[in-house]
Amino acid sequence: MIDVATVQAHLDGLAKPRGSLGRIEDLGVQLAVIQQRLDLVVRPRRAVLFAGDHGVVAQGVSAWPNDVTGLMVATILGGRATSSALAAAHDCDLRLVDVGVASPPTGAMPSFFRNASLGPGTADLSTGPALTIAEFDAAWAIGADEAKSACDGGFVVLIAGEMGIGNTTHAACLTALLAGASVDAAVGPGAGSDPATIAVKRRVVTDAVARAQPLLAHHPHAAIAAVAGFEIVAMAGFFAAGAAAGATLLLDGYVATAAALIAERLAPGTAAAMIAAHRSAEPGHAASLAALGLRPLLDFAMRLGEGTGALIALPLLDSAAALMRDVASLAELGVGRAD
Amino acid sequence: MIDVATVQAHLDGLAKPRGSLGRIEDLGVQLAVIQQRLDLVVRPRRAVLFAGDHGVVAQGVSAWPNDVTGLMVATILGGRATSSALAAAHDCDLRLVDVGVASPPTGAMPSFFRNASLGPGTADLSTGPALTIAEFDAAWAIGADEAKSACDGGFVVLIAGEMGIGNTTHAACLTALLAGASVDAAVGPGAGSDPATIAVKRRVVTDAVARAQPLLAHHPHAAIAAVAGFEIVAMAGFFAAGAAAGATLLLDGYVATAAALIAERLAPGTAAAMIAAHRSAEPGHAASLAALGLRPLLDFAMRLGEGTGALIALPLLDSAAALMRDVASLAELGVGRAD
Repeated sequence: MIDVATVQAHLDGLAKPRGSLGRIEDLGVQLAVIQQRLDLVVRPRRAVLFAGDHGVVAQGVSAWPNDVTGLMVATILGGRATSSALAAAHDCDLRLVDVGVASPPTGAMPSFFRNASLGPGTADLSTGPALTIAEFDAAWAIGADEAKSACDGGFVVLIAGEMGIGNTTHAACLTALLAGASVDAAVGPGAGSDPATIAVKRRVVTDAVARAQPLLAHHPHAAIAAVAGFEIVAMAGFFAAGAAAGATLLLDGYVATAAALIAERLAPGTAAAMIAAHRSAEPGHAASLAALGLRPLLDFAMRLGEGTGALIALPLLDSAAALMRDVASLAELGVGRAD
Repeated sequence: MIDVATVQAHLDGLAKPRGSLGRIEDLGVQLAVIQQRLDLVVRPRRAVLFAGDHGVVAQGVSAWPNDVTGLMVATILGGRATSSALAAAHDCDLRLVDVGVASPPTGAMPSFFRNASLGPGTADLSTGPALTIAEFDAAWAIGADEAKSACDGGFVVLIAGEMGIGNTTHAACLTALLAGASVDAAVGPGAGSDPATIAVKRRVVTDAVARAQPLLAHHPHAAIAAVAGFEIVAMAGFFAAGAAAGATLLLDGYVATAAALIAERLAPGTAAAMIAAHRSAEPGHAASLAALGLRPLLDFAMRLGEGTGALIALPLLDSAAALMRDVASLAELGVGRAD
């Protein structure tokens, strides 16, 4: 059993001043407890991006039209998105799963793409439940299947990312519903909304949360499905199955953390396998991270999605692994601790 | 001429919400202005570690004896130090230069080691000048030579690191002298000193700064030499020559930043080539970074030295470069900006 004290004793035996790598040592402790080993493994790693659209965009909650989801999917498929560039830079395998894009690209697809579309997008959460229970279960199963096949393929660190115009509206609902954040705290700019758009978004979220809240205690699936989205639920299933299979989960930003809230609610213990990559520029992210007991590594005012925050933080895991695995002990050098 | 506006326009044309990578975009701007190109180059990169001892350790300013410098040099030579592990993890060439180790290892040396020892250590700054002007100039020249040969060898990103028991006492003097920090703010725990040791350190620094201060206006070399150290001055020469040769300098922690203060004082403009990797756990580091106009990337409570903070931050440069170089523009996708 590798507990915090075991890992701390290992770190305190290394040839460096005690505690002198600060947050990287904390990360080493966290990873070793998740992985139940001192010789951390951080390769191979995979990011799976789930893409889907959202009917609520019709209400004017986003600066961008739905079509942009499909365009960004095409850009990822072409290897030219921010996530593509960062995954390549940090030796991370990348997959893309369409769980409900309104205007998906057509033609020959690369092997890292999976068409698992459940329809042309999540229903408009302002006029009714965003997902049926059957849709929720189907999206969860797709994500869980992705995690299982990644773990079967030997991937040890998993990232879930998303692409979906309008999905910060869903994430705000989930953050209010599951992390107890006020709507004011939960609603942020998303992909760059102006004040008028944010006001619409706030009203939509207030109403949707008011409808979902009463269901939460006795019908949590229904309450969550009412404000979730295909790609968000797929990420939740991915997290739950990944944690169950022993993977280390590197958590991206606001939308991914909303998915983590779902996973932790329906599969308690999932968050124990998570490292929070960053706190995003979305104001509600601090509340959802706190609800999960996670402390973010970076605070870089990022809000892109696509798993990019996790990809940027990924090499910090490499640093923690190198420290834990490759550094001499003071005992080897024949020196006693002076500090 | 690549100025901030040019880089910002490039970033704002990419297929992602405007400003959505936050601090990574700021880093991209900073790197592009340093490198005068939008297609950033971050490889190959080299860290040069300068090692030296310090007579002031006899006063009881450190938790560790001088011998530990030589032992850590041997550990680096054996590839088992924290810096070795991190350099290997992040594809960074590593060199080690002895500029004045009291008990250097003997025997066959690997090719990444250079013996440029100027003596068995810097003189005790509490009883007289730490360095003569001739020693200062010699140490500077060694560092400058290392930077020039790295640039001649094609290295584009340079890190300077240090190993030297007692050198945070010197760094504290330099931070008080050159960044205007109070001695209370400048003196921290170093490699893990207890309160009694810190009290001694504080008294030693107070006295040394009081002697050096009056010389600063008219004899800056002499004032700085009085409280500097072989490895610190070598780092200063490394920075000045590296900046002059067009390298990007990734700045490590408290001791490296003290060296940067020297470089900026004697070769103004050097700091413009610098990216600050992190703010260390040493309380004076904020003051020295501020004096150089540098904003640190990480705030991880690290205080190890050996270039380790810079090595941990190095992949953030890879992320910025990947963003600037490899991401599609909205124009390519035929989409106008909505944000």
